[in-house]
Amino acid sequence: MTTFSPRPITDVAAELGLEPDDIELYGKTKAKVGLEVVGRPARHQGRLILVTAINPTPAGEGKTTTSIALAMGMRRLGKRAVLALREPSLGPVFGVKGGGTGGGKASLTPADEINLHFTGDIHAITTAHNLLSALVDNSVYFRDTFDGAGEIDPRTITWGRAMDMNDRFLRNCIVGLGGKSHGKPREERFDITAASEIMAILALARDYSDLEARLARIVVGSSYDGKTITAGHVGAASAMCAVLRDALKPNLVQTLEGGPAFVHAGPFGNIAHGCNSVLATQLAIKLGDYAITEAGFGFDLGGEKFLNIKARLAGVWPRAIVLVATLRALKMHGGAPVKSAGEPNHDALTKGIAHLEKHIENAGAYGLQPIVAINVFPNDTEEELLLVERAASKLGARMARSEGFGRGGEGSLDLARVVTEVVDATDKNPPAPRYIYELEDAPQEKIRKVARTIYGAKDVVFVGSAEKDLKRIRDLGYEKLPVCMAKTQLSLTDDPSVYGRPSDFVISVREVRLSAGAGFLVPLTGDMMTMPGLPKVPAARQVKLLPSGQIKGLMQND
Amino acid sequence: MTTFSPRPITDVAAELGLEPDDIELYGKTKAKVGLEVVGRPARHQGRLILVTAINPTPAGEGKTTTSIALAMGMRRLGKRAVLALREPSLGPVFGVKGGGTGGGKASLTPADEINLHFTGDIHAITTAHNLLSALVDNSVYFRDTFDGAGEIDPRTITWGRAMDMNDRFLRNCIVGLGGKSHGKPREERFDITAASEIMAILALARDYSDLEARLARIVVGSSYDGKTITAGHVGAASAMCAVLRDALKPNLVQTLEGGPAFVHAGPFGNIAHGCNSVLATQLAIKLGDYAITEAGFGFDLGGEKFLNIKARLAGVWPRAIVLVATLRALKMHGGAPVKSAGEPNHDALTKGIAHLEKHIENAGAYGLQPIVAINVFPNDTEEELLLVERAASKLGARMARSEGFGRGGEGSLDLARVVTEVVDATDKNPPAPRYIYELEDAPQEKIRKVARTIYGAKDVVFVGSAEKDLKRIRDLGYEKLPVCMAKTQLSLTDDPSVYGRPSDFVISVREVRLSAGAGFLVPLTGDMMTMPGLPKVPAARQVKLLPSGQIKGLMQND
Repeated sequence: MTTFSPRPITDVAAELGLEPDDIELYGKTKAKVGLEVVGRPARHQGRLILVTAINPTPAGEGKTTTSIALAMGMRRLGKRAVLALREPSLGPVFGVKGGGTGGGKASLTPADEINLHFTGDIHAITTAHNLLSALVDNSVYFRDTFDGAGEIDPRTITWGRAMDMNDRFLRNCIVGLGGKSHGKPREERFDITAASEIMAILALARDYSDLEARLARIVVGSSYDGKTITAGHVGAASAMCAVLRDALKPNLVQTLEGGPAFVHAGPFGNIAHGCNSVLATQLAIKLGDYAITEAGFGFDLGGEKFLNIKARLAGVWPRAIVLVATLRALKMHGGAPVKSAGEPNHDALTKGIAHLEKHIENAGAYGLQPIVAINVFPNDTEEELLLVERAASKLGARMARSEGFGRGGEGSLDLARVVTEVVDATDKNPPAPRYIYELEDAPQEKIRKVARTIYGAKDVVFVGSAEKDLKRIRDLGYEKLPVCMAKTQLSLTDDPSVYGRPSDFVISVREVRLSAGAGFLVPLTGDMMTMPGLPKVPAARQVKLLPSGQIKGLMQND
Repeated sequence: MTTFSPRPITDVAAELGLEPDDIELYGKTKAKVGLEVVGRPARHQGRLILVTAINPTPAGEGKTTTSIALAMGMRRLGKRAVLALREPSLGPVFGVKGGGTGGGKASLTPADEINLHFTGDIHAITTAHNLLSALVDNSVYFRDTFDGAGEIDPRTITWGRAMDMNDRFLRNCIVGLGGKSHGKPREERFDITAASEIMAILALARDYSDLEARLARIVVGSSYDGKTITAGHVGAASAMCAVLRDALKPNLVQTLEGGPAFVHAGPFGNIAHGCNSVLATQLAIKLGDYAITEAGFGFDLGGEKFLNIKARLAGVWPRAIVLVATLRALKMHGGAPVKSAGEPNHDALTKGIAHLEKHIENAGAYGLQPIVAINVFPNDTEEELLLVERAASKLGARMARSEGFGRGGEGSLDLARVVTEVVDATDKNPPAPRYIYELEDAPQEKIRKVARTIYGAKDVVFVGSAEKDLKRIRDLGYEKLPVCMAKTQLSLTDDPSVYGRPSDFVISVREVRLSAGAGFLVPLTGDMMTMPGLPKVPAARQVKLLPSGQIKGLMQND
């Protein structure tokens, strides 16, 4: 696939100013960075660049590929650019999605290892999650009363089990069967590990004491007299923190051009906030002149959560927004079917540009300058590219092209130059954080502000258990938490079939979950799939170990 | 706990003659050894020493502690002694057992890491196991016919799911609930990962092609027309092999005195064979003058399987047997209750010695010289120790004392000297393999030979489905496989309450399972627990991360 020979990771670390004792090697091309490095005074004050995208379509946008290509291009321009990206989940690797390490020449290495066990972070999260599950059920079995907090009512248990696998048969099950000595029958679910609250916690924790405190706050159910039972009551938090000791340390790898990349934590973008860890982003800022990070799904969903949840918590704010799009995806937003989205279609493109315009306007709502990055395909026409450029320009946004997949950093020099110019121009007067809502706002108000300002909704209605859930959240004193919207990624609305730039729509919140450990409220606006299934012909059938020791078949284009 | 500062693992590797490129670092004190090292011509022809024990009692025998102490003692005598030990399972660490890294001053380091995620081997096995489970259920969902092998009948599925956790609620469950798009309801079980057939496979595989072939042979169920469906049919073997790539490489760590120890694979001792990997044992033999390895449970169970299954497959044979016992445990075999087993009790000891004598005699059945290693406690009396020594001596066995827990290698010089003498004396005429049964024997005959010769049983009866199972095994052409006895570890009989040296008893085989991938038949003589539970006060509540980064509470004496 490539003749690039990876640098020893010690060299990559040295390029960042890290000493051998600052890192722990995992083989020759992976390392973990000790948390003491995060605590040191910064050598640099890197400018943060947030890469996000239009609402995803089946045509694919290539957000991770473009992030990596951008870092490669900037490095070729002589800039110290450091990536902070999410850690791919193993489950989907065996399904259809393929790995999460970029594509083509704009990839991370060692891609096979990052897509499999990597440095074991996700396994550690699965273990911590299921340790808590086992302790909760053990307390049911022994009718523990947690030093007075009361006996847990098994019917109220909200903490499921986790597995890093696409496995639909585990979505709904009954456990504890087989008679008295084997438990007590109750309904249970397994979520994929990326959807575990512990993944979100790991991604947001600042240090070990913050990690342990967050773990202790996880709500697992209620006692028979209605008191909330937490992981702290169950006596699980310290052991879970110990299980996660190494997982909290950010991982360092490199791009296929030898540039540094922190790849750490990968929470789901629907029921969680969908960003790599706060620690990895902070490290990239500390060690680079430019820190390039990515948010999950589209700008309305992952980008919004990055800014209102993660950036607020981490005390960081980007200098610019890179909005990734492809002509195909824009045409799909304009009504073109996926099969013909690669063909010229001015009409569909024009309609699709309206979708892009909403995201460009949204950048303004945050006080940020957007750069539209078109991930160019070989048969994209110059005419259509200019159409997008003119539309962006009308709204004050620059557009740049990236051909990272086929040409790596060399194909992203245009994008790298534009981003560098825009970002450098902010040096004199860096944008101050401008959140869409304040933490003091009532939860309903937070949700309304996001829905109206970012989605373009007319209003929000609270149906199902939403009002009751919010009352309970208020009673527990958690109403000051930010909201982590659980909405389809495919549309600006809560209906996945609505493409383009809809208006006059209403967002329905049916339920509001409390993720007290992660530290956010999760308003659910639709069915959120937290355990994917495998397709009829799973990608796993193509995965194999080559005699060279390399593993093939983990990525779509492998 | 100790002021010993671990050597860089590169130094430990260098002591074994390994170059930096032969190993992959996992931090500074753990490494994996590449499989190419196993394939190289041997630098040494190490003499293999098998450490085993009397039947375990609640009083504890300290087999791993004694193995480590023996290696420490021999190293103090200037001998190149290399350990090959099992990898502890994470589940029991949170229960009652505590870690599996020895005890006191006769321990491995880094104990906390070895007892938690170590180098990720067990997580990889869990993943490979559940990948197969997901693919099997996915084939049920899509009614796959596996290129003509036929559609799997969900009621015949024998392949469960796995988790490395003590979790009784997962022993019996129903999965696939929730309606048409979420599967098809069926009964399911979770085993702890150490009980997974994949763990046994990893422990027995010689190289990657052997690994993949074994994985492909795993039987998962039958088609509606009665044909056997394997992991190969499901298309899972290649991906599972890829998932296990790094897990197959033996792990190198060190003792608390800096000596080398390979710690790799840890299959259950009841339904599997209970030994560390063939590859780790071969490496220890290749790189040391003395290779010290351990078998699971007592000599009748784990020791028998080591010799008849693993040693036969690996083409190795020990020079001597070290039989670990304590005075307390012997007294329990003589009828003393656990509470008072530490007190002097000549009567109980004399009766218990009869139990020891059976194991000494059994060593003779294999043509091997036994050395009785008494793991000495501070209040053991000289008089009672001499009683054991005289009994052993009468049967031609040497006895030696070990105080590894309290004094490390310095406390094991006596044992080290005796073992070295006995082993060195075999140099001129090394014992040839003498198996208890031949692979050509019919399965019933194999089981009878083990039961009569090793357990001292009068006969074996086949009840329940055993005869039917054996017919199916014959039809499938697997009757030449060795037998991996699933029997209680607590007794020479199949009744866990029978201590001492019983006679005139009959072994009942109720079922014979086929582990086609591991390559053995499993005759079940009782209920085998393959998913432990947690106690009322789980050890997990004591586990915590210290500010130093060390994890406390993972071991019983921590």
